[in-house]
Amino acid sequence: MPVFSNSTNELRTSEIRDLMSLANKPGMILFSGGMPDNDLFPLAEIDKIYNGLTPQEKKVAMQYGPTCGLPELIGSLSEFLSRKGLPVAENKILITTGSLQAINILAKVFIDPGDIILTENPCFIGAISAFKSYQADIKSIPLTGDGINLVLLEEMLNKLEKKPKFIYLTPNFHNPAGTLYSSETKQKLIKLMSGRDIPIIEDDAYSDLYFHDEDRDDLKTLKAIHPAGIDICYTSSFSKIIGPGLRLGWMLVPEQIYAKCELIKQSVDACSPSFTQVIADKFLRSGVVYSYIDKVRTEYKKRAEAMTAALQKYLPDGVTFTVPRGGFYIWLQLPENVDSTDVLKKAIEKGTVFVSGKTFDPAGKKNNFIRLSYCNTPVEKINKGIPIVADAIREMMSPTK
Amino acid sequence: MPVFSNSTNELRTSEIRDLMSLANKPGMILFSGGMPDNDLFPLAEIDKIYNGLTPQEKKVAMQYGPTCGLPELIGSLSEFLSRKGLPVAENKILITTGSLQAINILAKVFIDPGDIILTENPCFIGAISAFKSYQADIKSIPLTGDGINLVLLEEMLNKLEKKPKFIYLTPNFHNPAGTLYSSETKQKLIKLMSGRDIPIIEDDAYSDLYFHDEDRDDLKTLKAIHPAGIDICYTSSFSKIIGPGLRLGWMLVPEQIYAKCELIKQSVDACSPSFTQVIADKFLRSGVVYSYIDKVRTEYKKRAEAMTAALQKYLPDGVTFTVPRGGFYIWLQLPENVDSTDVLKKAIEKGTVFVSGKTFDPAGKKNNFIRLSYCNTPVEKINKGIPIVADAIREMMSPTK
Repeated sequence: MPVFSNSTNELRTSEIRDLMSLANKPGMILFSGGMPDNDLFPLAEIDKIYNGLTPQEKKVAMQYGPTCGLPELIGSLSEFLSRKGLPVAENKILITTGSLQAINILAKVFIDPGDIILTENPCFIGAISAFKSYQADIKSIPLTGDGINLVLLEEMLNKLEKKPKFIYLTPNFHNPAGTLYSSETKQKLIKLMSGRDIPIIEDDAYSDLYFHDEDRDDLKTLKAIHPAGIDICYTSSFSKIIGPGLRLGWMLVPEQIYAKCELIKQSVDACSPSFTQVIADKFLRSGVVYSYIDKVRTEYKKRAEAMTAALQKYLPDGVTFTVPRGGFYIWLQLPENVDSTDVLKKAIEKGTVFVSGKTFDPAGKKNNFIRLSYCNTPVEKINKGIPIVADAIREMMSPTK
Repeated sequence: MPVFSNSTNELRTSEIRDLMSLANKPGMILFSGGMPDNDLFPLAEIDKIYNGLTPQEKKVAMQYGPTCGLPELIGSLSEFLSRKGLPVAENKILITTGSLQAINILAKVFIDPGDIILTENPCFIGAISAFKSYQADIKSIPLTGDGINLVLLEEMLNKLEKKPKFIYLTPNFHNPAGTLYSSETKQKLIKLMSGRDIPIIEDDAYSDLYFHDEDRDDLKTLKAIHPAGIDICYTSSFSKIIGPGLRLGWMLVPEQIYAKCELIKQSVDACSPSFTQVIADKFLRSGVVYSYIDKVRTEYKKRAEAMTAALQKYLPDGVTFTVPRGGFYIWLQLPENVDSTDVLKKAIEKGTVFVSGKTFDPAGKKNNFIRLSYCNTPVEKINKGIPIVADAIREMMSPTK
């Protein structure tokens, strides 16, 4: 397969597609993809799981399952989520075909054409696509270094004439911004949202990938804080803790929302793949998931540190970023007048590729940002590629460009 | 898992759910499910395929794939479809998460709220749900023994003030009616639809499961006939030729429709499971699919013959059905005044279960029909269960009921 084929799911605009074809040549260093590294997948563990399945389990794997998910997987996932402090007993789990499907189904539940919904800016491109496909009017609020800008969020909430149908947030290791909301920001956010009757969709695909034990308090999800009176629809995924090819995610949501989501899922794909659900269940149930997460966390931390060090060494003045404390991404802020698509073209000529900022702006405009992924690139290539990215930025910043 | 958990995807109404809980007891003979028999899955072949994968193929299986599907699978599926005479070169394949997702995505492409769409009556419940979820105004045309009632279809087409967005048809071994359209009906249908600029969605999940070689001519799909000037969106599935647990189907559609579908799929679940796509590809590529289809065809034929014989022996006068020539189902027509939900309650008391007719009526009303599935029930149980169904019908037909 061409080097880019696996990242098409994150790179949607036609402009980006054109660049992709340019970038699709041997030796290109990729900082573009939001996927785990092929070389980190737990292949031996999956082999062991597959070959340990009983004939009866294999039959279940080949058959339709219930729309909500296989009962065994819901059981093992409940245990996994309970350990993370999530209020499993007070909510219902729906297994979905990736967490994007969970977000898409929730969007269908809440959005009528023209409805206002709130997001962070920047925002996960998959969520933007899903919300736009239901003709949402997306209002976005800037992120700061420790979470959504609460002042601007409050202003927005107070000035809107129509109540937003929900707010979509990624408090832990944001895609693309890498941001980890502080506990304080989370608490203030909950206070701000209280009594407004606006559900929160909390996208938590990355929180297992933290680099520092001392962040455990900050990592507590909004759903785990379990504030009274706010409907929190929690979504997450097996993509980062086993592999995206399973196409399995989930939502943990209040029962009345669950009932609507299950009906929608019935008409969307009937159920998620039993074949991969059986495997995911064993991966959780055996406890292998914990050692695997430890392993990839260590590796991603190493890559993030290498990228941070290289950026600190090579980036020109005027370009800033927050050192990532987990997740997959570093989000570079360029001077206002520098267009990251120009930088991207230059970077591709020189042999590296990343994603330009406006991809993650719901309005598709704000473009003085760059998303660099370190998840899918070994340290050696990071060390080789970052000076190239820095050069490309420097050239586009120079007055003679 | 409870005996019914696998069939929830076909049994959606709350009434049916209530009945399901009654029917969920040991020893119940099931004629309700539209799924392959667990004991017919090609487990040994799948084991061989999985254990023959290279590490590189396993990595592909664990990773995101392109939205359209893995290139290898699109290649082997193109070959499979070409052999069936489908115009693969003139169309594009989109791999979907089951064929229901293909139908759902096409529904999203074509339907704005209130739009008219046409279906057969009866109609696959999954399609009804998908069309209703986009607020289609469904107009349905009765099926006859050899296909859609062309006289009524023509009347409908001529009297509608707004042009329907599409017509959804299952010409080969209809679910639930079992009908195989004759070649003549297919040709007349094409003539009737020509020049009207109404796309056809052709759902072809069952055509591999024919019982008689002499039906090969009748089995030629509308898509394979490839009539000029009609956009035919062909959908089908791996569910009946490998297993539903893979959650893999596809559409074969004209390029301009494909482009819209691919965009929608990006926002729905990004891509279908790579894990099962890798396996499906090997299943096709090795040719195992052909011997497997032969095997299940033989078994389903045996079951259909057993059910036909038992029905002919035990059914009371006034109940009619068409002998199935392939597929999964027999569709019993009861006298107009007999309500199949009453029969179903009686049948459950006696130890058998099926699906009542109105489940498959887009209007949710017409209820003097019964869908009996023979796909998931061995001959011995068919022979035991059909007299019970016949008794239940007889009791509800009796004047003293």
